[in-house]
This record gives sequence, C-alpha cells and structure tokens, in this order.
Amino acid sequence: MEGWLESRYSINVSEMKRSVIRELLKLTRRPDIISFAGGLPSPETFPIQEIAELSKDLILKEGHWALQYGPTEGDPRLKEQIIRFIAKDGIAVGPDNLLIVSASQQALDMVARLFLNRKNSVVIGRPSYVGAIGAFRCCGARFVGVELDEAGMRMDMLREKLERMREDGDPPKFIYEVPDFQNPAGITLSLERRKEMLALAKEFQVLVIEDSPYRRLRYVGETLPSLYQLDGGEGRVIALHTFSKIMFPGLRLGWIIADPLIIDKLVILKQAMDLCTPPFTQAVATEYCRRGLLEPRIALNVELYRKKREVMLQALEQHMPKHPDLCWTKPEGGLFLWIRVPPTIDTDSMFYQALEENVAYVVGSGFYADEGGKDAMRINFSYPSEAEIEEGVKRLAKVIKKNLK
Amino acid sequence: MEGWLESRYSINVSEMKRSVIRELLKLTRRPDIISFAGGLPSPETFPIQEIAELSKDLILKEGHWALQYGPTEGDPRLKEQIIRFIAKDGIAVGPDNLLIVSASQQALDMVARLFLNRKNSVVIGRPSYVGAIGAFRCCGARFVGVELDEAGMRMDMLREKLERMREDGDPPKFIYEVPDFQNPAGITLSLERRKEMLALAKEFQVLVIEDSPYRRLRYVGETLPSLYQLDGGEGRVIALHTFSKIMFPGLRLGWIIADPLIIDKLVILKQAMDLCTPPFTQAVATEYCRRGLLEPRIALNVELYRKKREVMLQALEQHMPKHPDLCWTKPEGGLFLWIRVPPTIDTDSMFYQALEENVAYVVGSGFYADEGGKDAMRINFSYPSEAEIEEGVKRLAKVIKKNLK
Repeated sequence: MEGWLESRYSINVSEMKRSVIRELLKLTRRPDIISFAGGLPSPETFPIQEIAELSKDLILKEGHWALQYGPTEGDPRLKEQIIRFIAKDGIAVGPDNLLIVSASQQALDMVARLFLNRKNSVVIGRPSYVGAIGAFRCCGARFVGVELDEAGMRMDMLREKLERMREDGDPPKFIYEVPDFQNPAGITLSLERRKEMLALAKEFQVLVIEDSPYRRLRYVGETLPSLYQLDGGEGRVIALHTFSKIMFPGLRLGWIIADPLIIDKLVILKQAMDLCTPPFTQAVATEYCRRGLLEPRIALNVELYRKKREVMLQALEQHMPKHPDLCWTKPEGGLFLWIRVPPTIDTDSMFYQALEENVAYVVGSGFYADEGGKDAMRINFSYPSEAEIEEGVKRLAKVIKKNLK
Repeated sequence: MEGWLESRYSINVSEMKRSVIRELLKLTRRPDIISFAGGLPSPETFPIQEIAELSKDLILKEGHWALQYGPTEGDPRLKEQIIRFIAKDGIAVGPDNLLIVSASQQALDMVARLFLNRKNSVVIGRPSYVGAIGAFRCCGARFVGVELDEAGMRMDMLREKLERMREDGDPPKFIYEVPDFQNPAGITLSLERRKEMLALAKEFQVLVIEDSPYRRLRYVGETLPSLYQLDGGEGRVIALHTFSKIMFPGLRLGWIIADPLIIDKLVILKQAMDLCTPPFTQAVATEYCRRGLLEPRIALNVELYRKKREVMLQALEQHMPKHPDLCWTKPEGGLFLWIRVPPTIDTDSMFYQALEENVAYVVGSGFYADEGGKDAMRINFSYPSEAEIEEGVKRLAKVIKKNLK
C-alpha cells in the first residue's frame, strides 16, 4: 500500500516534512522538564468563570445564530467589535477590509495560497516564524532570507535582494514581517525601518504581510505605528491579527485586514477551504468583547508577562557564563527571547544534553528556511512560572557552560 | 492598484470564480421568499438549553484545555467519542485512523491538497456536491464526470472512463462519491454498485473519497454498508464525516477516517493550515456526546425531516404539472431532492421568474463542473416549515407550468 500511495501525493505534500520542532516538543512533555520550548499563553490568563457564564448566556440569547452556519466573511457582530478594538491602535477600516479567520496560521495559509505558485519567491527574515515558513513551503515557496540586527530586518540588505530579484526576473510575491517582538528573535522593527520597508515595497511594487500576534503585549518602551497604519491605505500591506495571545487560543480566531479587493479574493478562497470560521467561537469572542473583558485582560497579561520577562532577564544575567559570543535579545514585548551562542556550539545537538538536565528550548535551526540557526535558540517566558524560569535558566546555563569548554 | 495586484495572484486563485450559487443565495434572503435554496439544518433541531448548560459546565471543569492550544490530530477525548459513535455503524478504527477537522469542507480541501497537482484528474458524479467541485477546482483539478441513474453513479461508465484515462496516461487521483442521499441528487448508491466501485478502485489502483454528511439521516429503507466498511481496511477509501447535519453546524466539526499513513500526511498538512481545530468547539462536542445527547437528537431529526420530506413529496405530486420530462427523486434520506425539467426549460433563467413568484431553488448548473444541469434544480426540505413547503411547491409549480407552454 505505502509505495503505491506515495506516488499519489501532490508535489507540495511530498516535499513537506514533519516539523522538527513539533517532534522535539514531544520530548519536552516529561513532568520533570522545565520547558522554555512552547509558545503557549499562561493558563493563569484565562478568565474561566467569566467565559463559562458568557458562553451560557449567549447561547440562550443567540443560539439560533451561534449554532447555525455563518457568512464566510465572518460574523458582522464580531467585525464590529474588532473595528472598535483596532481603531484604538490607529487603524480605521470598515467591515469590507476585514476577514475573520481561524487564527493566524490560517491567515498565513490563505495568504500563501492567494499569491504563491510553486517556485515563487518570498522574502523572510533570518530567522522567521516557523509557522509562516511551513505555510509558505506548503505552497512550494522559494525563500529569500534577509538578516536581522537589533533594529529588525536590515533594509540595506532588503534593497540589495529586491534589486537582484528584479534583475533575475524573479520578483518576490511578498515580504513577510513580524514587526513587533518578532518570533523567534524578540526584535522590534524600528520606526525608521518601517518607513523604509514601505518605501521599498512601493518602489519594487511588492506586498508586505504584517503578522502581529504580539503587538498588544508590550512591556517596555513606546508602541510604534503598525506597517498597515503607516501604509495609509495604499493597499500594500496585508495585516494578520489573532486573539490567541490576548484572549485565549482555544477559540482559534483571528482576522485579516486588507484592501477590499484582496478580502474579496480571500473570501472566495475561504469558501473552498472551510465555508466559514465557527459561528460558535465567533459568538463567544463577540460576547467577550461586548462585556468589556478584552482590554482589562490584556492589561493583566501585560503585567504578568512583564514580570516573567524581568525574572528571565535577571536570571540570564546572573547565571549565564560571560562570553563575548553569548548574548540574548531583551525584547520589549511578546513571549520570546533569542539566545546566540558561540559558533563552536551546535544547539541542535545540545538540545538532548539540555533534556538530560531537565530543561528544554527550541532549536534555532527551526526558524531558518535555509541552513542557519545552529548557533541560536528560542526561549519562552510566558508559560513557565517565575520559579521555573529561575530554575530553568540555571539548568540551561549549566549546559551551555559545559559546551563552552 | 487593481491591475498591479491582479498579476500577483496565484494561478489557482485567478481561476476561481465567485460561487454563482452563493450570489444567487443572497437574492433569496427577502422575507417574502420561501427558499428551498439553502442546505441548512432546521434550527428546531438545536437543543439550545442543553448546549448552554453543558458549555458552562465544561468550561468550569475543563477550561484549562478547552481554552488552550490543542493537538493537530484532534482532541483524544473527542476521538474516543467518535470511535464509539462510528463503531455502531460497523466501522472499527483506532485514534490513528482519525483526524478531527473543521467540518467536511476542510476535509475536502485537505484531500484536494494532499493529492492534487494542477491539471490532475478526479472522477466526480454528474451532478456532484458544489463544495467538492469548488475545493478540487481550487487545486487546479480537471474533472471527469460520470452520469448517475436511480442507483447512483453508473459503473459501466466509470469503468469506461477509468480505462480511457489509463490509456491516456492520466489516471485519476481519486473518485469522489457521496453514496448516501447524494447532494444534490438525493440518490443512494446501491449495494451492488458500492461493491463494483471498490472492485474498480482496486483494479485501477485509485482511491475513493467517501463523503457522508447525511448518512445518519435516513427516513425510509435500510442502511447500506459504507464504502469504508466494505473496503475492509484495504486503505482505498478515505471517509469524510461531519457533525454539521446531526449535531449542529455552528461548531464546524468533522472527521476524516483513513489509513494511518494518510492521516499522518494530513496532520502535517493541517499543521501548516491552522495548527488545530478549535479545542473549544471540540470540548463542546465531546461533552455533548458524553451526555448522551447525540443519538436521541439524531432520532428526533430523522422524525422531523421524514415528515417534511413526506410533505414535499405529496405537494409535488399534487401541484406539479404532469409532463413526461418532469420528474424528481424520492430520496431515502438527506436534505434534498432533485427536479428534472423538460430540456426546453433553462433553470438558470427560470430562477429569476421563481424569485418573482417568491420562491427560490438552487440552479442545477451549479452542481456540474462542465456545462450540464440547466434542466435541473435542487430543492431543500429540512429548513422550511411544513406550511412553507406546501406553499412554496405551489409557487414553484406555477412557475414551471408557465414555462411548459
């Protein structure tokens, strides 16, 4: 059966690999392991009682629509709440600019399918979010990587790549960017670079996919305007947002903001993909917003994660060996920080040593579409407790010390 | 902006068309129109009170997992309930044979992406479910149509097509079949034909996609074994099931049953598509099953729809003009029946006359990947009330009478 079947799969699927990160994550589930590997929000942030109450109330009140099929575009009641929510972030759009989706991963998949033929190019950061790499690869994308520094994607290098691609007759379909507290690097794209990126997008006629899962989780510094806002309605930015990190992920709800022409195409695509995002979960999210739970909960999350980030940074400072090539980002928000180790260390193989010390991270190589990242790792501070962060960093420091010798 | 953008879309998306059916459905939403056009379950079948109660209870009890991310394969607790549910239908499988998906439309999309490269062929019935045609077209499928008669897809013609495709070096990736109360035709594939289809699948080494949304909604006659059951674990059948028509559609929940090798590939694909189906909706469905609500509710649905079907068949008998080329199916289950009109009538253009008489149907042409169906229409009996069915059929008969002259 297997051999016969193998020849039947599509080329896109044949080229897909089981996610290495996913396989490694399975190894981190031992209860004695302190895992910095996941990217989960802390369950402390879930207002169980309120959600239980509002779920019951809304089904009694509006079950006729929450239990039925809904429009592909998304529930207009939820759109109304989202429009208000993003207006506070300087984005003034109407319902035709919005599509409700099953969280950011579906948004990434939809964007990939909307634009990519096999072998089409996309520009991504080095490193980049693994789920984006996976979604784009699943449509046969070619990746062109641009280095990051402490201010985000390097614009000199972006220009260089765009020029070369134009010369080669292979312009990219889009630039993929997480401007705020990038996953995995924890880096924020500076205001100047944001403007430069949009200028380049205009000059080279290329779209920008702005993925903003963590934007509202800022712990220090000032919020920068989003790329969508800076674009000023010129239609060059498609923004992807999710409730996963600011409400809770179990609903799998997010939204795409884009030019109505693009939304219109995405609606046709979504019709073929799943008809609509569940009206049930959309009703829960709508009621959650209507009851005014969203903003105060975000504020609580920010408080909680700010402390955890602080604990992690202090623990790193205290326990990590001093070495000129050992450093980490100090993210202004989000869930992750990124550790660079000396090039003599291979974080892929060190992962198993860390497991022996009962601590886990995500290997840096997972965030590169090419061969990079073996000198890096991503660690998460939102899920573990403060005590676990303290102890886990100690264990991690011990492993790294061993490998420095 | 538009011209510049148009050249950026993928070929698959560029070839997609806004669904004609969807556009026509918008016209049917006037309150004075009796619509036979939808395919919605009746809201009478939604146990609002029970769902409100169980939602609250389960979030209080199990909110920590209902609100968090979940495994891509689906929640093991829901899998356990599904395994019990399908065991009663003669299907004995383990969790590795199952993938929880966001209802049948996602299953169709996943199957399309798993197997289809652009220009690959698939075999479908004439007519076929419009959502399947849409999902397959979205991956660039070529369609090979096989006629149906009163016992379902014609096996003589299927053999002929498979032989021709083999000679042409273009074997189909799969045969798509809705064996029970097919949408739109309301026809059930006979037991003999089920066996023949599987024999042909074996002989020609082709997979069968068995889509079974209505299987448990049988009003007359005996249940026939499913293709998956008849295949006896040989791995040639991929079965698609949904809770949409037997629980309620607002959860957008379904499952795929297949060989573990295929499930494994689908899991990798789903990881890139949406990470997981919402744990929240899976928790609701699990609790619904645990409380023993599923089977008694299906029995109530069957009672309700059986009566509506009877009312529709009687109304058709009573009000439709007698004409040798005017006939309709008498479905043993499901939600739809299919009316054939004389070839002098074009149901596409008659649709607007029907709207003037305040009654709506779905144009038959929507269910053909080629040019067929202009002599047919689909009408639904699950959503309208018995009084609406009676009155709507009268109006429809009036329109058809006019067109017979």
